[in-house]
Amino acid sequence: MVEPAQALNYAREHHPDYLAELKEFLAIPSVSTLSEYIPDMRRAAEWVCGQMQRIGLQNVEVMPTARHPVAYGEWLNAPGKPTVLVYGHYDVQPPDPLSEWISPPFQATVRGDDLYARGASDMKGEVHACLKALEALLQSGPLPVNIKVMIEGEEEIGSPSLGPFMQAHKDKLQCDVCLNPDVSILRPDLPSLVYGLRGLAYFEVWVYGPSHDLHSGVFGGSVHNPAVVLAELIAGMHDKQGRITLPGFYDKVREPSPQELAELIHEGGSDEAWMQLAGVPALYGEAGYSTAARLGVRPTLDVCGLLSGWIGEGAKTVLPARAMAKISMRLVPYQDADAVEEQLKEYLRRNAPPTVRWEVKSISAGPAVLVKRGTPSVQAAVAALEATFGVKPVFKLEGGSVPVAGLVQDLLGAESILMGFGLPDDNLHSPNEKFHLPNYYRGIETFIRFFDRMAQQKA
Amino acid sequence: MVEPAQALNYAREHHPDYLAELKEFLAIPSVSTLSEYIPDMRRAAEWVCGQMQRIGLQNVEVMPTARHPVAYGEWLNAPGKPTVLVYGHYDVQPPDPLSEWISPPFQATVRGDDLYARGASDMKGEVHACLKALEALLQSGPLPVNIKVMIEGEEEIGSPSLGPFMQAHKDKLQCDVCLNPDVSILRPDLPSLVYGLRGLAYFEVWVYGPSHDLHSGVFGGSVHNPAVVLAELIAGMHDKQGRITLPGFYDKVREPSPQELAELIHEGGSDEAWMQLAGVPALYGEAGYSTAARLGVRPTLDVCGLLSGWIGEGAKTVLPARAMAKISMRLVPYQDADAVEEQLKEYLRRNAPPTVRWEVKSISAGPAVLVKRGTPSVQAAVAALEATFGVKPVFKLEGGSVPVAGLVQDLLGAESILMGFGLPDDNLHSPNEKFHLPNYYRGIETFIRFFDRMAQQKA
Repeated sequence: MVEPAQALNYAREHHPDYLAELKEFLAIPSVSTLSEYIPDMRRAAEWVCGQMQRIGLQNVEVMPTARHPVAYGEWLNAPGKPTVLVYGHYDVQPPDPLSEWISPPFQATVRGDDLYARGASDMKGEVHACLKALEALLQSGPLPVNIKVMIEGEEEIGSPSLGPFMQAHKDKLQCDVCLNPDVSILRPDLPSLVYGLRGLAYFEVWVYGPSHDLHSGVFGGSVHNPAVVLAELIAGMHDKQGRITLPGFYDKVREPSPQELAELIHEGGSDEAWMQLAGVPALYGEAGYSTAARLGVRPTLDVCGLLSGWIGEGAKTVLPARAMAKISMRLVPYQDADAVEEQLKEYLRRNAPPTVRWEVKSISAGPAVLVKRGTPSVQAAVAALEATFGVKPVFKLEGGSVPVAGLVQDLLGAESILMGFGLPDDNLHSPNEKFHLPNYYRGIETFIRFFDRMAQQKA
Repeated sequence: MVEPAQALNYAREHHPDYLAELKEFLAIPSVSTLSEYIPDMRRAAEWVCGQMQRIGLQNVEVMPTARHPVAYGEWLNAPGKPTVLVYGHYDVQPPDPLSEWISPPFQATVRGDDLYARGASDMKGEVHACLKALEALLQSGPLPVNIKVMIEGEEEIGSPSLGPFMQAHKDKLQCDVCLNPDVSILRPDLPSLVYGLRGLAYFEVWVYGPSHDLHSGVFGGSVHNPAVVLAELIAGMHDKQGRITLPGFYDKVREPSPQELAELIHEGGSDEAWMQLAGVPALYGEAGYSTAARLGVRPTLDVCGLLSGWIGEGAKTVLPARAMAKISMRLVPYQDADAVEEQLKEYLRRNAPPTVRWEVKSISAGPAVLVKRGTPSVQAAVAALEATFGVKPVFKLEGGSVPVAGLVQDLLGAESILMGFGLPDDNLHSPNEKFHLPNYYRGIETFIRFFDRMAQQKA
């Protein structure tokens, strides 16, 4: 196999330029979930389009959706060669709690080998690495394959507009395979490919008690407290074995074979290392399953937020009018997010007392994904990773959710190559998110090699 | 009995002046629980002292405590006559949630017969009514009794500085009886005297899980969620009968006799009316007790606030590092707040899983109070109420807590006359707090008559 040496060299010579550019991208606070950042979202989409224009992609445009725009660009001058759809997202999680950041979240800061900023690892770093790989290839000649780049702005809120967008632009987005780097590897020296991702169903559950906040002394004892009711409802959602009690929740969950379970790779290497990473005194999960299984093949139910009554300083003796929980479930094949919503409602119908009213608001949803492992595109990815890292990649399942992978399968009939360069300790969605810079540079080289090797395939 | 006609007439002629003055008092946002209001707290104390000065009290001063000052004034020129310590508080609850107020909370607004403002009923209206009664009496001659006025600024946060303050000024505060109007009556036309108040123990319970917020996809299923753990702990604090499960919680609770239970007065008149007032589809409480008993003689445990993780718009898929509940318990004789704190901790020791750490912060505490019903001071209060309202008052228990009543018993050896003029639907601690203006004026007349009748007693 001949290496794309010219492109690799070009990339290696431009590390300082790339880093400076990435910092610029990370300085845009593109928080998709909060309306106050709408102008920054637009700015981030335009920044990505500006990049695509500069490196030589064509038909670049900021394409509107119902909410946040998609940055699109293409290069379709390799007749007879496959078309790779590059997926990414330019939006990031909110930086809260701000006080726990060592350096400001939107002022990317290098400490040691790491670049600290919100979105560094999830996933502006990887989006940028992809674009730099294309740039390096374009500097040394025409691209080896056809390329379509689709960078969305709603991944962190569950990609609600992406389905309608892809449906509306189905022909434009036709491709042979989708490269999706929104995943991570196990260790800096151990590359991996993700062959399965959990789905997501995210809800707000509201419990309404009195019509207004009451004095807890005047009314306490005679009125059911909605915060207590919500706590009781949440408490009942897991049994003592850590299993989720929503009626029918496990009906569609495929029980993995003992061999599959044995082959699962532990995301953290060991329980000990995983505990360290999470900063907990002990791990916890569904009885009868290993950590790798709990993360890879078992669904979860987590409370992501709780809000009721008085949360300021000191004492306000109030019996609150309402209480809210944000509840996210990670789904596995072949659970369906709509069915899960109905199971949640059925649970509440069966268990909520007549002293309160309740409401379920669906915030976001996406199915779990399993990718075929033996395709030529996967072989190209394996070869690219091995050439860059010097070791063969392992195949792993990942606990997070990437709604687009299901959409690519359903709407475009294409498989995804889930190949990213984050690390388990990158503090995704947490303060002090970071991206490991050696991985950023290895990522660029891997992408160069991947596009190059994809050219061996027929379209 | 000769009526204090001159004082009563003086008061009746000054209703518009009084109302204008009360609005001025209500415009000061004296929220004791939030540090940002410290200057307003000082301003409110000075406003009260200015009033006392103007009406002719002596030795008026703003007296410092560890936190918010006490407004003090006296008139001690009735040798051989009893000394009445007038207690009140100038602090108010936070006005949140602001969006639910029809008129701004610190811009007192008359609608119909009611004056709407934070603190109108709890208890600036009653503090002001007391001062106006003294003014009316002083306008018509020397006061019939000796008076000491002590208006504190920490009642809404559990009066933490009042004990040390009263201990330090024990001699200065010596009195025969304490008039405490920080209570309510049953209906506008049905006066009442309170002979028992519940105590308060208010805590923050913190549950700590991972050292930082985690990605709920990456870690979900392998780490115990502290918001879920907190919910489970709260859920376990009541059994299916609505009884509180903290170990030893009921050990000191006096079981009332069937006769006592039968004599209890329903705060709302009926369950139907109470439901209306609370705005709930059904009442709820400890099995085997009436609403009157649940409010008067049974202790409670309420969640006043819940906070964890992401509470902003939309989805943040976070497995939170910590979760917090504000928990208030209303105590009955002879429960002890320190013992209750230990019971809460023991409950957590027994029930919190080893996957989390927890912490209990005591925010405020005060004992329950029972007042002797047959004293001459109580008779003076009964006579004053009957003369003003034209009907005999009833005796009732109240669910709220007034820490000072216990301190007056313990430190000064005096009983309290718990005689106030709020109503059950005054929205205490809630949006749209109001004070019923006819009660404000009747309150002034009742206080005039009470001071007058107290002069019949020996010191």
